[in-house]
Amino acid sequence: MNRHTTERNVIRYEGGQFIEQEDTIALEKPLTIRINQVEFATVVCTPDHLEDMVVGFLASEGVIRSYRDVEEMLFNYSQGIVNVKASVSMSLTSETYTKRVISSCCGKSRHFYLQSDSRTAKTIMRAPSLTAKECLSNMKKLQERSTTFKSTGGVHNAAIFKGDELIASRTDIGRHNALDKLYGFALRHHIHPSELSIAFSGRISSEVVLKLSKMGIGILLSKSAPTDLALQLAEDLEITTVGFIRQGGFNIYTKHERIII
Amino acid sequence: MNRHTTERNVIRYEGGQFIEQEDTIALEKPLTIRINQVEFATVVCTPDHLEDMVVGFLASEGVIRSYRDVEEMLFNYSQGIVNVKASVSMSLTSETYTKRVISSCCGKSRHFYLQSDSRTAKTIMRAPSLTAKECLSNMKKLQERSTTFKSTGGVHNAAIFKGDELIASRTDIGRHNALDKLYGFALRHHIHPSELSIAFSGRISSEVVLKLSKMGIGILLSKSAPTDLALQLAEDLEITTVGFIRQGGFNIYTKHERIII
Repeated sequence: MNRHTTERNVIRYEGGQFIEQEDTIALEKPLTIRINQVEFATVVCTPDHLEDMVVGFLASEGVIRSYRDVEEMLFNYSQGIVNVKASVSMSLTSETYTKRVISSCCGKSRHFYLQSDSRTAKTIMRAPSLTAKECLSNMKKLQERSTTFKSTGGVHNAAIFKGDELIASRTDIGRHNALDKLYGFALRHHIHPSELSIAFSGRISSEVVLKLSKMGIGILLSKSAPTDLALQLAEDLEITTVGFIRQGGFNIYTKHERIII
Repeated sequence: MNRHTTERNVIRYEGGQFIEQEDTIALEKPLTIRINQVEFATVVCTPDHLEDMVVGFLASEGVIRSYRDVEEMLFNYSQGIVNVKASVSMSLTSETYTKRVISSCCGKSRHFYLQSDSRTAKTIMRAPSLTAKECLSNMKKLQERSTTFKSTGGVHNAAIFKGDELIASRTDIGRHNALDKLYGFALRHHIHPSELSIAFSGRISSEVVLKLSKMGIGILLSKSAPTDLALQLAEDLEITTVGFIRQGGFNIYTKHERIII
């Protein structure tokens, strides 16, 4: 079973007429995360790689410091609940977590004005170099892997690369979730971030840059555009941002010396 | 001054070479909303039509019932703060507003499992009909209006229509913000929602469907794809969803009888 999509009858309009036909639709499911019996958050996501997503989410929120802090994850798929037993580094009922912050797109815009960011975002001291050709070919590999996108048109895709080698690619209706799934994967497999880059289907927003910084990854490739706040953060955090990768060209916005001919 | 964009030097790679050139980048700014001295939320957005956005946001969150409830809005643009004086219909420090809910994409997925939704989402009892040709031409009009998208590639666009007449169009880096700007516009100008439809550049997610229901608008046109949860909600709330509007065709997913030849 494909856990990304479902089939559904739709009315198609084409050539001046209505016809009924079957269509493939992206799944979207809520998952409520409880930590040590306390309800922490509800993430609406594409229901696959949920273990990775929960680990990546808790790490980027600063709730856990490493995968070792997770003692147990019990999923109740039908109810959409995961009970996590973890040694947490903070009080989850504290004021830190009660401020609601709504973002440009996608969740909980954890900019530096939130405490959880200042604890977990960090300047990238070590990152690899990529050639211009690797920038182009990595984005191409990401797109080739993205079968759900092709069938439903409704999801974000992201992949981690070591040089030109695709290590893992993940798909989600939420851009953050796709990145959290990669973060969790890297943590659970003890993959060191300093040699990695990320290719991403979505826009370069401030939140995406913060996420990379939390992951410790210094190069972000995107086929889409950046925002100015994202670029300011990328400069501060020393993250290389490459956008508009398409038709053999791209733009480098920040920390350009890591991209070489 | 264009309040959507800024200029910035980038390194362009093309034809095997790097060249430095100027590029237009979408602005992204945080705005912290305080209500009656209490910090309520921080929205990261494209900094225009902020009065409309704040009114639309507070109404869709169920904090205010109508525009009359807003007594005063004082903006401090340099600090990114707005102080709202309002007669609010609830306790803002209550447990209702402390649960963090993270969405598929964009903010605070206020699905029915959140109390603020069950208070503000409502089934659409009255909506207009649109012809298939109006579906195509309204989406075309939205795209023609979207000049920021053309120059930066990084924003969402939405517009309200009465039949085939474009009433207002709004642009934002956040899909929710673009819709909140329209919601606030409609409230402040006393435009009745039962005759309106919305054309939207982004995906049909559960949150977008909920937003329409809160606005009281029964037809959503999108050039993009839906998710299954969005379509379930649209059926429950009796909202017509039309997706993949491109190249003279589209798909109707729910409540199809409002779209006629």
